[in-house]
Amino acid sequence: MSVSVELLSFTPEPDRVVAASAKLCYSDVSACNLKEGLSDHQSAKLLAHLVKSGHMSPFEHVAFTFAMDGLSRVCTHQLVRHRLASYSQQSQRYVLMEKPEVVVPPSITKDGALKDKYMKIVQNSFEVYKLLVERGVPREDARYVLPHSWKTRIVVTMNARELHHFFSLRLCRRAQWEIREVARRMLLLVREKAPLIFKLAGPSCVVYGKCKEVSSCGEPYKNVEEVLADVLDF
Amino acid sequence: MSVSVELLSFTPEPDRVVAASAKLCYSDVSACNLKEGLSDHQSAKLLAHLVKSGHMSPFEHVAFTFAMDGLSRVCTHQLVRHRLASYSQQSQRYVLMEKPEVVVPPSITKDGALKDKYMKIVQNSFEVYKLLVERGVPREDARYVLPHSWKTRIVVTMNARELHHFFSLRLCRRAQWEIREVARRMLLLVREKAPLIFKLAGPSCVVYGKCKEVSSCGEPYKNVEEVLADVLDF
Amino acid sequence: MSVSVELLSFTPEPDRVVAASAKLCYSDVSACNLKEGLSDHQSAKLLAHLVKSGHMSPFEHVAFTFAMDGLSRVCTHQLVRHRLASYSQQSQRYVLMEKPEVVVPPSITKDGALKDKYMKIVQNSFEVYKLLVERGVPREDARYVLPHSWKTRIVVTMNARELHHFFSLRLCRRAQWEIREVARRMLLLVREKAPLIFKLAGPSCVVYGKCKEVSSCGEPYKNVEEVLADVLDF
Amino acid sequence: MSVSVELLSFTPEPDRVVAASAKLCYSDVSACNLKEGLSDHQSAKLLAHLVKSGHMSPFEHVAFTFAMDGLSRVCTHQLVRHRLASYSQQSQRYVLMEKPEVVVPPSITKDGALKDKYMKIVQNSFEVYKLLVERGVPREDARYVLPHSWKTRIVVTMNARELHHFFSLRLCRRAQWEIREVARRMLLLVREKAPLIFKLAGPSCVVYGKCKEVSSCGEPYKNVEEVLADVLDF
Repeated sequence: MSVSVELLSFTPEPDRVVAASAKLCYSDVSACNLKEGLSDHQSAKLLAHLVKSGHMSPFEHVAFTFAMDGLSRVCTHQLVRHRLASYSQQSQRYVLMEKPEVVVPPSITKDGALKDKYMKIVQNSFEVYKLLVERGVPREDARYVLPHSWKTRIVVTMNARELHHFFSLRLCRRAQWEIREVARRMLLLVREKAPLIFKLAGPSCVVYGKCKEVSSCGEPYKNVEEVLADVLDF
Repeated sequence: MSVSVELLSFTPEPDRVVAASAKLCYSDVSACNLKEGLSDHQSAKLLAHLVKSGHMSPFEHVAFTFAMDGLSRVCTHQLVRHRLASYSQQSQRYVLMEKPEVVVPPSITKDGALKDKYMKIVQNSFEVYKLLVERGVPREDARYVLPHSWKTRIVVTMNARELHHFFSLRLCRRAQWEIREVARRMLLLVREKAPLIFKLAGPSCVVYGKCKEVSSCGEPYKNVEEVLADVLDF
Repeated sequence: MSVSVELLSFTPEPDRVVAASAKLCYSDVSACNLKEGLSDHQSAKLLAHLVKSGHMSPFEHVAFTFAMDGLSRVCTHQLVRHRLASYSQQSQRYVLMEKPEVVVPPSITKDGALKDKYMKIVQNSFEVYKLLVERGVPREDARYVLPHSWKTRIVVTMNARELHHFFSLRLCRRAQWEIREVARRMLLLVREKAPLIFKLAGPSCVVYGKCKEVSSCGEPYKNVEEVLADVLDF
Repeated sequence: MSVSVELLSFTPEPDRVVAASAKLCYSDVSACNLKEGLSDHQSAKLLAHLVKSGHMSPFEHVAFTFAMDGLSRVCTHQLVRHRLASYSQQSQRYVLMEKPEVVVPPSITKDGALKDKYMKIVQNSFEVYKLLVERGVPREDARYVLPHSWKTRIVVTMNARELHHFFSLRLCRRAQWEIREVARRMLLLVREKAPLIFKLAGPSCVVYGKCKEVSSCGEPYKNVEEVLADVLDF
């Protein structure tokens, strides 16, 4: 089974909440009547202005919670480096690994012989894991033998400001392919719920029309749609 | 008009989202089926365990956004010191102050003569503010003359973990009275939406049955209900 | 007395610590021998590369602590909104205000008659403060009558990454003048201790050669030196 | 070679900086004269009071930077979950792994036959890694085959408040053994430089004289010295 990314929960009416919060800063409006009287058109204009000018703080008022299955611990080790976010991850200290389940990089999948070697060492590692557990080694120690490719599960919450930042880094062609695919799926999900907030999100080539990396990949994306269509199967 | 605190938005089904996230850490369950099969009784037990053992990270997956009117800048200066939260505040740089609106501390309200002096200096300060603006002084400079008591508006988002921390500090009898009343109203609002998460929230006398302050007030609250009934009008 | 900003403490050899940390990420070097064998020239090249490419995380390993006197509570209310920093501020709840000490905006100082009105209302506010305290009103309540211009004291710690972010926002010509002057003094101090880290710091016109604001001021700074020479007395 | 933890850098005179910052909050002292006139005895008393009452914010003004070699990626995956800290870690995307270097859990080391199996699968995994790289698989993909036990290098910065929090969690007997040993070495290092700040640091049995865990280990440490003497070799 491939990686799975689903939306577990999110702040309702995200576009309206952000627009209303931004409006409070600059006008003489009561906080308690905030959501009234903002037309969709006004919201859209206000949100586009905020993204372009980098005034992202109102985007923090809405958050999205994702349930993810089947990503490797390589990927979660990168993911949890984003500190302005919240994580609950399946513990290998407590949960027994029942069968070998790993992510296989596409660069390995495409070569049958290499893939066989990869799967064989995974299987062998799992055999040693099982043996260690049977001999009384604690699960938390036996797992030292499992490969980085081992699949894990995680719940991730990020607010819309951090998501913008996350997408700018992790949807870049130079980002590592596994977290890129996770990011692509996240963006697909949040665009559906908050089309205005994420209308303009992604790597700098898309948001600013210009690469900000010193060593550019040389193939800038033309627009968000092209980013979203860039599926990677694994 | 008194201070007003309302719930602008929040993560739906907060109790279930936290319980599901906590469950993922310790069991072999698919992230994508998380919300299924958790009974209310199981959720309640799990959440009580998390609070008592201080394992608060799953509480970060749900957030609450408050719209607040009519609190003083004394109060917001304290409020924004809580850094694990998001704020959008009405700007005195851009918004013109139209009339004098201030918070009056109860210790002043109760003495008619003192209150008169207080209101007179507020009025005089506002007259100078108006004069400065008329003479071409920018709003952002004219406001230097306004008193700390001046009312402001703010949108505040905190997740449930930070709210627990906030309540532990700001619902203590030794906290400043204005932020205490704001905190009391916040707790009333979130308990309605997330009764399990906030079943046991408040100062240490309530949560741990014991004061953690070095200089205790000497009057521990008996329970959350007593905290919530301790209304302060201003 | 004017505002005062001094360096209370900082991580020693900041340039070397950042360069060494960055080097660890990309090479096969022992963490414990990190500081050896990095020439000044190599450090300079590495740090310039990090700033230009926006890979700022190694800048977090060094921090600077500032002691500030004589800034207004208008200014500290803005300052403490930077959440990736640490603050210890003089408390008006506990400390008695002994005499009127306020910041006067230059737009008011320049007009003698306006300044007289400003100072008179400050004096009157202080008289009411004193009266309230004499009559038994707690200090924490009496201060509600003091103007926003009231001077305060604060200790501020920021790491070099947050300082870069802070300078980009607060040294822009569109930033509020008081916090701009505080930021200018901070940059002067840290450049002396960490010339490589802060070689290229300031508003986007200086760092990127191009304004990132949607509504630009129209007067881009040419270089950091011009920013640092733009003194504002108050 | 065993794990290695060294102090790369730290804020000088940490005890004095924290005491001075705390003093500012509660007294009418100029920020710029802060460090004068605080005797060692006064500092000690003030810091002990802060720890006991949980008023930890002044501890944020000093930070410690550690260079760590030879810990496993199991350990760093836990370490980087502490979000109020800064990390620079050796990248397996870019750096080629030259030979097999892994952490062996003591529960495996003690059984010769198990250890042989463990080392054999490590060696086999490394052979596959080398083969993959030779066949043109990118380093960042080949590493998927390496075990969690693989050694890594990391630079870590935490301020003294976060360190207190870190020690309270990670020096508990119930913490995972590898991160416990890392934490023990960190505490040894910082106590030497900041004896007052870390006089009372460690798990709740030591700091509060009472276990705060719901499921206690049943063997509370008597004091910090006992924690520091509890060496784990691996």
